[in-house]
Amino acid sequence: MSFKVLLNEDEMPRQWYNIAADLPTPMQPPLGPDGNPVKAEDLAPVFPMNIIEQEVSQERWIDIPEEVLQKLCMWRPSPLRRAVNLEKALGTPAKIYYKDEGVSPAGSHKPNSAVPQAYYNKQFGIEKITTETGAGQWGSALAFACALFGIQCKVYMVRISFDQKPFRKMMMNVWGADCVASPSTQTQAGRDVLAKHPDTPGSLGIAISEAVEEAVSDPRGKTRYALGSVLNHVLLHQTIIGLEAKKQLQKVGIGKPDIVIGCAGGGSNFAGIAFPFMLDKINGADIEIYPVEPTSCPTLTRAPFAYDHGDVARMTPLLPMYTLGREFVSPPIHAGGLRYHGMAPLVSQTVVEGLATPKAFDQLHCYESALLWARTEGFIPAPETSHAIACAIEEAKKAKEEGREKTILFSWSGHGLMDLVGYAKFMEGQLIDFPLPEEDLRESLKSLEGLPKPVAAKSGKW
Amino acid sequence: MSFKVLLNEDEMPRQWYNIAADLPTPMQPPLGPDGNPVKAEDLAPVFPMNIIEQEVSQERWIDIPEEVLQKLCMWRPSPLRRAVNLEKALGTPAKIYYKDEGVSPAGSHKPNSAVPQAYYNKQFGIEKITTETGAGQWGSALAFACALFGIQCKVYMVRISFDQKPFRKMMMNVWGADCVASPSTQTQAGRDVLAKHPDTPGSLGIAISEAVEEAVSDPRGKTRYALGSVLNHVLLHQTIIGLEAKKQLQKVGIGKPDIVIGCAGGGSNFAGIAFPFMLDKINGADIEIYPVEPTSCPTLTRAPFAYDHGDVARMTPLLPMYTLGREFVSPPIHAGGLRYHGMAPLVSQTVVEGLATPKAFDQLHCYESALLWARTEGFIPAPETSHAIACAIEEAKKAKEEGREKTILFSWSGHGLMDLVGYAKFMEGQLIDFPLPEEDLRESLKSLEGLPKPVAAKSGKW
Repeated sequence: MSFKVLLNEDEMPRQWYNIAADLPTPMQPPLGPDGNPVKAEDLAPVFPMNIIEQEVSQERWIDIPEEVLQKLCMWRPSPLRRAVNLEKALGTPAKIYYKDEGVSPAGSHKPNSAVPQAYYNKQFGIEKITTETGAGQWGSALAFACALFGIQCKVYMVRISFDQKPFRKMMMNVWGADCVASPSTQTQAGRDVLAKHPDTPGSLGIAISEAVEEAVSDPRGKTRYALGSVLNHVLLHQTIIGLEAKKQLQKVGIGKPDIVIGCAGGGSNFAGIAFPFMLDKINGADIEIYPVEPTSCPTLTRAPFAYDHGDVARMTPLLPMYTLGREFVSPPIHAGGLRYHGMAPLVSQTVVEGLATPKAFDQLHCYESALLWARTEGFIPAPETSHAIACAIEEAKKAKEEGREKTILFSWSGHGLMDLVGYAKFMEGQLIDFPLPEEDLRESLKSLEGLPKPVAAKSGKW
Repeated sequence: MSFKVLLNEDEMPRQWYNIAADLPTPMQPPLGPDGNPVKAEDLAPVFPMNIIEQEVSQERWIDIPEEVLQKLCMWRPSPLRRAVNLEKALGTPAKIYYKDEGVSPAGSHKPNSAVPQAYYNKQFGIEKITTETGAGQWGSALAFACALFGIQCKVYMVRISFDQKPFRKMMMNVWGADCVASPSTQTQAGRDVLAKHPDTPGSLGIAISEAVEEAVSDPRGKTRYALGSVLNHVLLHQTIIGLEAKKQLQKVGIGKPDIVIGCAGGGSNFAGIAFPFMLDKINGADIEIYPVEPTSCPTLTRAPFAYDHGDVARMTPLLPMYTLGREFVSPPIHAGGLRYHGMAPLVSQTVVEGLATPKAFDQLHCYESALLWARTEGFIPAPETSHAIACAIEEAKKAKEEGREKTILFSWSGHGLMDLVGYAKFMEGQLIDFPLPEEDLRESLKSLEGLPKPVAAKSGKW
């Protein structure tokens, strides 16, 4: 029997891995409204300075503070599981391993960054953190982390999700956080939107505006804003996933996986599992690395590498990334965490380099894969995670056709216990696919016109 | 750092512990409608014979079949965690350990018995299992287990829960089970009730009748019924919890805990954590063992030890147990798993013997304890589990007053992610306590009049 590979707490990595130190071509800088690179001090009203320093760091290995390690140990190291029953059902010679990030109190990988972010804010003397959340994964993770450090937490949750997913708000409340529907009457940004569109369902763009406004307008300067993906420091914190997985594979005698897979929305989950293995790839290892996204929001597979804002209201700097255009409105697929118009600049650069090869899957195919998974492996995956599962199953079938033993590794980004409505609709035949029409893509990309263009710098090594 | 104690798969117990072999006074038999002890063959239309044999076994140790071990390994051995943050918050010298049964795919301890039950039915050639479920924990566990063994599963879910907790039905459907609201039109029992009371909210008693009727009326004889608590074989399967916990405590140098706690509804979770430690107590160890129930359903703390039926419709044999009377209707507390009128005969006998000392807690106090837990330890407990937490906190405070280092161990029977509505109502001040009035208890106990009386056999050793 070998269904899981465990690490003891004293085997947990003591450092995060910063891939910025190893990329063959340097990252292009975020740009301010004037078209010039953003300076650290410009971000100081929004983020605490210790996090800003981490955001721009070029150090390869960054120590995880002892107090952060203590909190991560509440659920980490997470199990590396092997999908033995699924392998049998598929009749594949491939070994399918997955890193189970669903074991955290909030049920996803998000607390891996929420905990250090809450810690650094606390160290910097911050008393309150604001954030936005779409489907609620990040908001609940930050609520949990703030409870551990005794920091106030205020979450602006997109109105339509707030109404459709009341359980996420309840989770945040259990951890003592305040969660309001966005747009709200508590900020100028919210009031402005409500005056014009009283019935708006809200958007991440609006919610970001409200959260940032509340952070920067605290007269005592004791409030900051936090983001759950996209930025360098968030991806850095998530590399603990892949660093643990490496040790675990080595424990069962696997020097390297052949394929590494992660679903990719803003990029933090994918980066978490993939970046430590990219280090091996940069050093010559033969590893296929697949970020997986929905065909309805095909940022990496069909959009250009361009400078764009992270939000629709253009409050964030211009970031060099794959982007569908900030005004892109994703169809209502159930994988709420994969509906972002852009992609983390670090992930984008690894795709430009050819270190990662993006793939896209349809929603219905992902739900079919998730059902097969649940009925063989037991655990019910989040809709986001089902994209990685669909890809893993496809690769396991290929291995069978080729008659090749392969090791497939993917990140189980979270469980689906809060997302059962999507499963019910799928089983009732109520869901459809939303492949993005070419003309809609062209229309959406028009918002990029007139912006500076990044150089798609590529070393040509991959 | 030592937040959790892990076992490898090869350290998992290979046998279950049957406390019937060690009770100083023999169990009194279940009685049939004629007042005579029930014979094994009387049960054959309802349960497969291999399970009936286990139900009446007097063997101390019973081998866990290899195929069952393989399935249990999907999530077992479960972690033994230490509530370090809570200990600090309480300032207690006590060490609080808890066995996390929430890590199973269905989120509770129930799959520990659902998996072997599905296995034994499969071995016996059974193709379909019927069952009833109240709040849905048992129904979803059995649905999961049946998916693993390729057995059809039909769950009769009490109508009011079916309507109030749609997510549990969705879980069962994900695992391929059929879940219908009870009373249904699919059985004579259901149709009879609907004819008289078309708007009935249903009850466990009615749902049991429907599930048993469907099982016994399969003309091919390929359908059987399964129960998720109360019976000897169910409690037997759950002893893996305590057997693992013992090994885990030994790993951190703790020869025995001072206090063992489990919430008790039908008794399977409590028995699972407690019976292996009762073996030590029978052999002379000094251990306090507390089953914890709600004050609103005080079976062990205020009801008599009597012969009573397991269901309101009197379809089950008479069992010797603590009982509030089979017609007892529990107030609508959120701990749905603790609203049963009776208690497992084996657990009841350990209380008669003085091996276990029951305690009862109010709903509001349990929710307060659960919130303190979630904000220090992160994980959100099920409302049932919060009863064990309330007791553990009380004991940790006592240890502080006494200035004594103690080891407290409890069973975390499941997570509360499917039960967030109860938390929301508690935080909004909408919940109340329901201490059982003396006159209601007297009224409810009238249903025991005229039934045979068991002897409250007590060895006098404790």
